[in-house]
Amino acid sequence: MTLPAVLARIDTQMPEAIVRLLEFLRIPSISTDPAYADSCQDAADWLVADLRSIGVTAEKRTTPKHPMVVGHAGQDAPPDAPHLLFYGHYDVQPVDPLALWTRDPFDPAVEQTPKGEVIRGRGTSDDKGQLMTFVEACRAWREVNGTLPCRITFFFEGEEESGSPSLVPFMKENAEELRADIALICDTGLFQSKTPAIVTMLRGMVSDEVTITGPDKDLHSGFFGGIAANPIRVLSRILTGLHDSTGRVTLPGFYDNIPDLSPEMRAQWDRLGFDHAKFLGDVGLSQPAGEEGRTPLEMIWSRPTAEVNGIWGGYTGDGFKTVLPSQTSAKISFRLVEGQDPDAIRDAFRDYVTSALPVDCTAQFIDHRGSRAGVMETSHPAFEAARRALSNEWSEEAAYVGCGGSIPIAGYFGEILDMSAMLIGFGKDDDAIHSPDEKYDMESFHKGTRSWARILDALTSTSDV
Amino acid sequence: MTLPAVLARIDTQMPEAIVRLLEFLRIPSISTDPAYADSCQDAADWLVADLRSIGVTAEKRTTPKHPMVVGHAGQDAPPDAPHLLFYGHYDVQPVDPLALWTRDPFDPAVEQTPKGEVIRGRGTSDDKGQLMTFVEACRAWREVNGTLPCRITFFFEGEEESGSPSLVPFMKENAEELRADIALICDTGLFQSKTPAIVTMLRGMVSDEVTITGPDKDLHSGFFGGIAANPIRVLSRILTGLHDSTGRVTLPGFYDNIPDLSPEMRAQWDRLGFDHAKFLGDVGLSQPAGEEGRTPLEMIWSRPTAEVNGIWGGYTGDGFKTVLPSQTSAKISFRLVEGQDPDAIRDAFRDYVTSALPVDCTAQFIDHRGSRAGVMETSHPAFEAARRALSNEWSEEAAYVGCGGSIPIAGYFGEILDMSAMLIGFGKDDDAIHSPDEKYDMESFHKGTRSWARILDALTSTSDV
Repeated sequence: MTLPAVLARIDTQMPEAIVRLLEFLRIPSISTDPAYADSCQDAADWLVADLRSIGVTAEKRTTPKHPMVVGHAGQDAPPDAPHLLFYGHYDVQPVDPLALWTRDPFDPAVEQTPKGEVIRGRGTSDDKGQLMTFVEACRAWREVNGTLPCRITFFFEGEEESGSPSLVPFMKENAEELRADIALICDTGLFQSKTPAIVTMLRGMVSDEVTITGPDKDLHSGFFGGIAANPIRVLSRILTGLHDSTGRVTLPGFYDNIPDLSPEMRAQWDRLGFDHAKFLGDVGLSQPAGEEGRTPLEMIWSRPTAEVNGIWGGYTGDGFKTVLPSQTSAKISFRLVEGQDPDAIRDAFRDYVTSALPVDCTAQFIDHRGSRAGVMETSHPAFEAARRALSNEWSEEAAYVGCGGSIPIAGYFGEILDMSAMLIGFGKDDDAIHSPDEKYDMESFHKGTRSWARILDALTSTSDV
Repeated sequence: MTLPAVLARIDTQMPEAIVRLLEFLRIPSISTDPAYADSCQDAADWLVADLRSIGVTAEKRTTPKHPMVVGHAGQDAPPDAPHLLFYGHYDVQPVDPLALWTRDPFDPAVEQTPKGEVIRGRGTSDDKGQLMTFVEACRAWREVNGTLPCRITFFFEGEEESGSPSLVPFMKENAEELRADIALICDTGLFQSKTPAIVTMLRGMVSDEVTITGPDKDLHSGFFGGIAANPIRVLSRILTGLHDSTGRVTLPGFYDNIPDLSPEMRAQWDRLGFDHAKFLGDVGLSQPAGEEGRTPLEMIWSRPTAEVNGIWGGYTGDGFKTVLPSQTSAKISFRLVEGQDPDAIRDAFRDYVTSALPVDCTAQFIDHRGSRAGVMETSHPAFEAARRALSNEWSEEAAYVGCGGSIPIAGYFGEILDMSAMLIGFGKDDDAIHSPDEKYDMESFHKGTRSWARILDALTSTSDV
């Protein structure tokens, strides 16, 4: 009766687990901003020390940017037990706009809210809190049993929020060391904030930055207004032209090769009873604003998008300045689905922008990242074993779902290491990841940790993984 | 032979005049940014001291924001001499983007350039260097003659670059003190950087700031992309819709009541031989981008515009952040011509924005300023006297011209004080006012000062002013 003892241990040690997590969260490991490079080192060091405290042979591994953390444990486990790899990321998103946070994003705390206890702070849900659910499950298992139930490789990166430039080279260079029987990834959520879920469909992404240059210097709109090309107006027109009146993206070939949703998948998704009114209502919206003729779940899980994630140009400070700016920029991302090639989409976007430029205007681009959509093979027996374990913990049938976000690592495990990947996470829709006031519910952290203990038990009690 | 002696005095004292100007320019009197409020006080104090040094009874006058400077001189002048008022502004534009300056904007200096000597720094041309041309002319006149040729009221404000909120109330409260026979304003330029000019037509302006709110918090574009309204896309579409494909503004009633350019004025403007290719070429452009079917001078002087002067929303820092922002904002200005009512244009803009909002999006507005276009009455004899004086100094027939910029003060002298205003300035098209690397040519400063001496002489040698 190992599992009940491990679950009990998790319950009683929750206060200490929270103290550890808060310590981890205080490190401002924003990977996209070079000013926080030292903090990324600190976060990696913290993880190495914490893994070593539970008997994992862990070390920080250098990359051209932020370090990886790799650890190995359970070498003394039964030879027929599966070899698992667990992946998470210790880096976090920037925190702006800081004024909209109700507390310092890097001074996290447990808060009582009308909906229950939450841990508030940057990285609580994405992804420090989530990755610690697995680490805490391992800690409890080892404390009860003196060892882990199987070989486990821990693999943490610090560049997930900034395009993971080192990930693929590192996985290729260390393929032998990293290869396992199956990968576990904790960076997703509960379906509708309550149903445990395994993600089997992930959108890919292309992100690009465009700068439009008109006049070669900033101009006075009194002397030049009405005669000089204004790059803000040019960029606005180009961005507007990316969609037609039905919400479809206008780039040539954008929808080519995208398979229709199968009738089986459509039926399964319909059974999930997605409450899109609540999903939108929680963020102050009332109606889906996407492609006409598509269901809300299709819009999020299986249809591609074009979005503007940032725009800036001209005078943006207090007061007013009657400037016609020389340059204006935007950050644009496309969420991709099965059948779309990131390079082809990027090319189509750049061709469109270039062809839409008026005389005297030029465009420069900065390539940020690209990844294909991912589709998981649920035929691997670990999927059903994990689904049963999740159902038991949450007292509700766990579901196979899609995910609108892009988690390229899932695809890399297949492409580079020939491994299946299971994406299991405990985030909720109102966690405000990438936004001010990010939080992770205490329930997510507690039951998430218990879920991993059950999954470890389920995967090592069967011989078919 | 007063005038030749005054002109000679100006020539020999130019080095000391430059030292004074550089001292004035070092004060960072940016009026739109509250962080520089103390510097605006310093600039006003500097002016008071400098005016007193040439015998003007000057003082700083408090307003709710930045102070006015008012001075009086020449009370002992012949009673039949005209009473002149000279207006300028001591505040300057913000300096961003700072990285594009080749020197600290508030560490001005005389630089040798291939086109001749220039004074480089913020405010050199707009308007500190220009206003000092008049002060230096008065200084030389007094040094030669012991007194000024007529009563002169000096009137300097410190809010011209931030909407002049205190100007109209101050003029109304001090109307008796400020009223004179004619106002002189030095805040304009030479036509085509070489022909001396008196501006008789000024565009007005309405500026407004709009913020579009969609979701009530920033969202992750993976989870919400494709289903949630994106305020950047909404704002882009709204801004794009402000113009039709011929470059005309689409607001209902926008062009109502605008008089056609008279055949006489059109003929006079045609004779000016405006070199729009050079005008645009100097800022890296090759073709007029305005209304189809209008000449370049019409586009700048006598046609209204809608321009976006600033836009911002979402993530604008290094790297990439896949956010769908809750809010996006833009600063928009309309240059107005005769027949357009600022309030009606603002209302039409706001009505348009509000009517173009999709479901779930709202718009908030911040009112920045509004002023009508101005048309001067050249029948006042001072206009011809000044035009002859300018022609003599520059050895070229001075012209009556339009100005695309908005100088509301010109209209206020007429409306509040029932005075005509003459706008005479010596800026050049490449002065980069409101932009990085602003400069004022030494020629502008030197011959500008001499021009005012000639104008003082011309206006006081006639009895019909």
